[in-house]
Amino acid sequence: MVRDERGVKGRKGKGDGESKDNLCWGRNSVLSMLETVPEACRKVYMATGSQRSFRDDLLALAGPSAIEVVEACGSYLDELTGGEKHQGVVAEVDMPRSLDLSELPDREGPSLILAMDHLKDPHNFGAMIRSAEVAGAEGVIFPGRRSVGITGTVLKTSAGAAFRLPLFEVVNLVRSLEDLKKKGYWVVGLDHEAEMDIWESPLPDRLVLVVGSEGEGLSRLTSERCDDLRRIPMTGKTGSLNASVASALGMFEWQRLYVSSKSV
Amino acid sequence: MVRDERGVKGRKGKGDGESKDNLCWGRNSVLSMLETVPEACRKVYMATGSQRSFRDDLLALAGPSAIEVVEACGSYLDELTGGEKHQGVVAEVDMPRSLDLSELPDREGPSLILAMDHLKDPHNFGAMIRSAEVAGAEGVIFPGRRSVGITGTVLKTSAGAAFRLPLFEVVNLVRSLEDLKKKGYWVVGLDHEAEMDIWESPLPDRLVLVVGSEGEGLSRLTSERCDDLRRIPMTGKTGSLNASVASALGMFEWQRLYVSSKSV
Repeated sequence: MVRDERGVKGRKGKGDGESKDNLCWGRNSVLSMLETVPEACRKVYMATGSQRSFRDDLLALAGPSAIEVVEACGSYLDELTGGEKHQGVVAEVDMPRSLDLSELPDREGPSLILAMDHLKDPHNFGAMIRSAEVAGAEGVIFPGRRSVGITGTVLKTSAGAAFRLPLFEVVNLVRSLEDLKKKGYWVVGLDHEAEMDIWESPLPDRLVLVVGSEGEGLSRLTSERCDDLRRIPMTGKTGSLNASVASALGMFEWQRLYVSSKSV
Repeated sequence: MVRDERGVKGRKGKGDGESKDNLCWGRNSVLSMLETVPEACRKVYMATGSQRSFRDDLLALAGPSAIEVVEACGSYLDELTGGEKHQGVVAEVDMPRSLDLSELPDREGPSLILAMDHLKDPHNFGAMIRSAEVAGAEGVIFPGRRSVGITGTVLKTSAGAAFRLPLFEVVNLVRSLEDLKKKGYWVVGLDHEAEMDIWESPLPDRLVLVVGSEGEGLSRLTSERCDDLRRIPMTGKTGSLNASVASALGMFEWQRLYVSSKSV
């Protein structure tokens, strides 16, 4: 299974002309991908001299799906990823396919969707996808334009969740929010100037939680379409939370109310 | 106030022998520092050709404290910060002084302290300090050895909160937890294998929330000293949350119970 490919060192460019966006790196994200969506993985580059235990884990997961694992020197991995912290492992992958909102299954009962209003930072995007899966969200909605897309950094920071959670790319966020209202969802925007905080009255059980871009918050158009605006209470002078922390607080408040049955 | 110092381009090393750890970079963190703790700032380097609006904001904040603002080329800022994303502004600072736990004020009533059990990632450390201030924590405890310290990256990701929130560096985390118990605190560790979740029964009003290192979680010794272990309920296959998200969920649950009076 392991083939020595040190000769690749001399190759220029990003893995046979692959874009960096078809790569996934980092130990946890590659292992997580092999474990849960091996069909998305085409080939794995492992740094020469990798720890035995990591190597064993990697081969055990790649083996059953007959995924090729290739040894390469660290500097080749640096070159592939453009200097990202790959931790000695890089995978060539089929990027997660974003879905059309019409593919959202029609289900009754409590349901959570996270909507991102023109997020800019791929680390935040990935972190939010990770938290959304853990909180039990149905999926994530993001506008295709003027917004970060699904990149290698998103894959890494999502810890593999980007391969599993439905990601809906929409043309017009405001129109999509209207469509979701027709499906019985309430649209709640996080806004630090809102009158009510997220705990003041229960969040709705069918919830689209809308999070604004870093720095700028919700756009006016989006904000006007929200059924309700809520803030997270804040102490001290920082005056803001990281966007991924704020969205997690909103999503887990829904989880506390509707999923965790033993909630106080 | 603005002095052109393009000649600095040729200088080697990190700003006259300053360590990178005496630097703070990024627009928000530098502005936030100038606004709330200008006395910690010695000098600001602003990239030549910075946006007028940012330049105006910077000068308006630096002016009253007579902090020198120097223009320098972007590549000099790259060199100073060792390639970090400085967004065109770098400040020479007096790093926040960590305190001794004996300096913790004796106060009655609800109180929250975040304790970090050998955290490794400065981004997580900074993000946790930021969330701790916003949640209303009294301070953050971290062990001085085998743990990330207060670095420039911590300052940046804390959005300036590292300059304002008391940071207690302790020699022995377990002994410090015992000291805090004597002051009426309950020590609760976040552990994904705990039986009870964070919502199942109310968290104590005088709470030390202990968060383990990335990947490894709480150490056995620390875990044994906790009065209580709690988990955050998780759905899906990711199986874990980012350490800073997990700690924010725990801290804001305390905030919901004891600070936000209008809580449902």
